[in-house]
Amino acid sequence: MTIELLEKPWERLLELVETKDSAQLLDFLNSMTPPDTALAISRLRIEDQGRLFAMLNPADAAEVMEDIPDSQAAEVIEELEPEQAAAILEELDSDHIADLLWELDDEDAEAIINEMAPEDAEEARQFLEYEPDTAGGLMVSEYLAFSGEQTIREVLDDFQDKREEYSGYHVQYIFVTDTDNRLTGVLRMHDLLFPRRDSKLKNLMIENPLKIVVTASIDELRNFFEEHHLFGAPIVDAEGHLLGVVLPEAVEEARRKRSVHQFLGLSGIVGGEEFRSMPLLQRSGRRLSWLSLNIVLNIVAASVIALYQDTLAAAIALAVFLPMVSDMSGCSGNQAVAVSMRELSLGLVKPGELLRVLSKEAGIGLLNGAVLGLLLGGAAWLWKGNFYLGMVVGGALALNTLVAVSFGGLIPLLLKRLKLDPALVSSPLLTTVTDMCGFFFVLSFASLVLQRL
Amino acid sequence: MTIELLEKPWERLLELVETKDSAQLLDFLNSMTPPDTALAISRLRIEDQGRLFAMLNPADAAEVMEDIPDSQAAEVIEELEPEQAAAILEELDSDHIADLLWELDDEDAEAIINEMAPEDAEEARQFLEYEPDTAGGLMVSEYLAFSGEQTIREVLDDFQDKREEYSGYHVQYIFVTDTDNRLTGVLRMHDLLFPRRDSKLKNLMIENPLKIVVTASIDELRNFFEEHHLFGAPIVDAEGHLLGVVLPEAVEEARRKRSVHQFLGLSGIVGGEEFRSMPLLQRSGRRLSWLSLNIVLNIVAASVIALYQDTLAAAIALAVFLPMVSDMSGCSGNQAVAVSMRELSLGLVKPGELLRVLSKEAGIGLLNGAVLGLLLGGAAWLWKGNFYLGMVVGGALALNTLVAVSFGGLIPLLLKRLKLDPALVSSPLLTTVTDMCGFFFVLSFASLVLQRL
Repeated sequence: MTIELLEKPWERLLELVETKDSAQLLDFLNSMTPPDTALAISRLRIEDQGRLFAMLNPADAAEVMEDIPDSQAAEVIEELEPEQAAAILEELDSDHIADLLWELDDEDAEAIINEMAPEDAEEARQFLEYEPDTAGGLMVSEYLAFSGEQTIREVLDDFQDKREEYSGYHVQYIFVTDTDNRLTGVLRMHDLLFPRRDSKLKNLMIENPLKIVVTASIDELRNFFEEHHLFGAPIVDAEGHLLGVVLPEAVEEARRKRSVHQFLGLSGIVGGEEFRSMPLLQRSGRRLSWLSLNIVLNIVAASVIALYQDTLAAAIALAVFLPMVSDMSGCSGNQAVAVSMRELSLGLVKPGELLRVLSKEAGIGLLNGAVLGLLLGGAAWLWKGNFYLGMVVGGALALNTLVAVSFGGLIPLLLKRLKLDPALVSSPLLTTVTDMCGFFFVLSFASLVLQRL
Repeated sequence: MTIELLEKPWERLLELVETKDSAQLLDFLNSMTPPDTALAISRLRIEDQGRLFAMLNPADAAEVMEDIPDSQAAEVIEELEPEQAAAILEELDSDHIADLLWELDDEDAEAIINEMAPEDAEEARQFLEYEPDTAGGLMVSEYLAFSGEQTIREVLDDFQDKREEYSGYHVQYIFVTDTDNRLTGVLRMHDLLFPRRDSKLKNLMIENPLKIVVTASIDELRNFFEEHHLFGAPIVDAEGHLLGVVLPEAVEEARRKRSVHQFLGLSGIVGGEEFRSMPLLQRSGRRLSWLSLNIVLNIVAASVIALYQDTLAAAIALAVFLPMVSDMSGCSGNQAVAVSMRELSLGLVKPGELLRVLSKEAGIGLLNGAVLGLLLGGAAWLWKGNFYLGMVVGGALALNTLVAVSFGGLIPLLLKRLKLDPALVSSPLLTTVTDMCGFFFVLSFASLVLQRL
């Protein structure tokens, strides 16, 4: 009872926004954990979210913005005046700025960049030139670089002098560059702890360090970090100039976003993430775009039934089994799709190995088809006391399971070779095929023994 | 042509295993990237995988084992003699040992632990007491701890002396403990760089540091690392004794495993991961266990058609639309399931907020139901030139979409409250309901206007 009467956090937030009490608003936000903050803010209307961020000073607003998902943060930014948005963005990491700007329209992004301090603006523009899912898009430009001629003492003194500036850095390595900013060596932080203070960096550094070119893909970065357990990878251009550092967390985060996209895609949410705080029409439209494709595929599959209407009318009991055969096979096929997508993402199968997958899946298809066919065929026989009905239904399910499992295993490989997204297309494609084949097997087998059904 | 003739890496591996040339085998393994190594090894029969690892010395075998997924590594370990397995495991990180032992039967794990050096064995037993998805299961016991009375000089000298031993540690922090091993403070690595060498740790350390209790869940750990951007969290028991350190990578890895489980569960792969290198019967059995549940649910749904056989026989054109209405609604419902699961995992919705989800989904259900109903109903009307057929089909689809979207949005919340796994159960549950309701709506609407169809 009392719990029901307690004010919800977003209602309290809205009150504070309405009364324009920014000190209390900040206190209240600081009193919540980041997940609760994200939840509460997401429940406000987007205009109120904009007013909330506009009330905070840029540094505080940036801290709150780090707690909410990028796609939501981008929507808030669109609500703000460009100069407000610019002030907040300047407080974020360089790669985070780029992530958010990428979510905006080009025009909105340009308007915000124009309001930023010149050097920040230039950096942001540079970052926007890199695709978000490459080393360039994932790197941060905050790193420590020194000349090889400098001594440990000079480096440590520099640390003391610029302690403030460096405080926001993810400092794991010290890079050594030549006068032309080309990467020549690297030292780990604790390499500074042991040697004499007057040693020159060039004599201590690891020469020709591992590095990654700015155009490298997420998968290349993941392989790099899997192979070398490092806390960061220096990113260079084609000529070897040091541009930034990619942290393993950033790669992991990008991979996670991609797999969320996959998960939502498999369920038919396309064109970006959906949150229930978005307007109804936008949510409805995104879902409908995928459903409309589905309706066409469904019509194609169901047209098989239309062709066999006479058979069906003559043995109406078949109508009970049509959806069962197609649904069951669809499930079997989806299992094979999932295993293939998993093996592809782990690199345990290559897109070209169609024969291997086919031979592995055909075995399962035959075995599981036989088991399921016997079960459903037996049930049909018992129900109507008609052996031929059992044969038709069981035979159709067995054969359709074989088709579904074999085809399901191959689809992700085929789509990958055609450079289509397996997450998005596999399921509707599979369902169409299993429906068509399922209807065809049941009805054509039935038409062969129609006299006896 | 030439490419086809080239030997596949796993064929080369098998040759080297057959000829028992361990030096060449090691060279060949070292020449491959970790993903290629994992792929090549996974293609060998499990006995040959066992022979391969038995040929390597334990340290090399452990390095190769780090490259392959845990569930596969565990299968190899089952193939090895317990003393071989123990020797390899001793070369791994403490949390990795625990991960692998957890994948084994209790007996197999015990046999291996008995072959380990006494202190390693005790540590392994301790780790097995913690659930794998808790702080205890994810922590490593390799960490640096000193007394608060020690000086920086003593710490640095200790580093020099034990450089070898510490080389495998993930050293990010130095912990300070009292004589009873209770955690009292923490220093960052670079806190050692600035102060005088004779300063005592107790005067430099951060007192009452953040810490996590050994029973904390993955979600608690994730929230911790989201809130505090740290490179590790000290893990303590209820009395504050320091037990180990959890790294953010370990939490991320555990979360990834869980989401893979979710993904495979959604597609009906249960009881652990499936790799195509597993024996046919095992793969078939895992898939069948879930399909058998599905066949029962399918029979329940299809029984609605059996009840209305007379209606269907009188208007056989309906048979074409039955699977379309149920499939389309299933797709719509799955979209709502995906959005709910996503919002649950981001913490944007709480399992108790049924009314909120219902109101948000009902809007989409009405809108998308109306659009899809008009499309399919219009198609039916045009096809048969019968307005009533269009009304029956379109009305049934519209209503069933509303049911599917509303129910789909609620299922993950309801299952979460019942402590069931939404990934595994949502989809078959949803399909059964959308099938039953879809068949019922089409056939009962049709029976109302049967004279005119």
